[in-house]
Amino acid sequence: GGPVAAALRELRCSCLQTTQRVQPEMISNLQVFAIGPQCSEVEVVASLKNGTEVCLDPQAPFLKKVIQKLLDRYLSL
Amino acid sequence: GGPVAAALRELRCSCLQTTQRVQPEMISNLQVFAIGPQCSEVEVVASLKNGTEVCLDPQAPFLKKVIQKLLDRYLSL
Repeated sequence: GGPVAAALRELRCSCLQTTQRVQPEMISNLQVFAIGPQCSEVEVVASLKNGTEVCLDPQAPFLKKVIQKLLDRYLSL
Repeated sequence: GGPVAAALRELRCSCLQTTQRVQPEMISNLQVFAIGPQCSEVEVVASLKNGTEVCLDPQAPFLKKVIQKLLDRYLSL
């Protein structure tokens, strides 16, 4: 059940602060974590091609554009 | 650099087929993988609260609604 997936990440919130800007072209993987036992906030974590991770504000207007660009195959290496 | 993140997942496409429907309330984590060395297609993988994973069509209209519900904190346990 759900505990399997939950066990794969740490049982706490991942994001202490969010980044205001990110280049969509830099994102290799974007994760949206629903509210759950690990955190009472929705969290959005972008893994960047330089190997770092940044947290994004789930309510930031630019996030929708970022997601749309990702889904539209905008990105390539 | 990028190889760090890439090494954390298998170096091939993750999705052989996509699911047409998924209940947003069932999603614990949604991942969008950009095109990269591991796959020439954008891939969207939803981890469900029952411990399974399903792939979603990046171009499916319902996906935008699912993402919006996730971001709007629609979900709770």
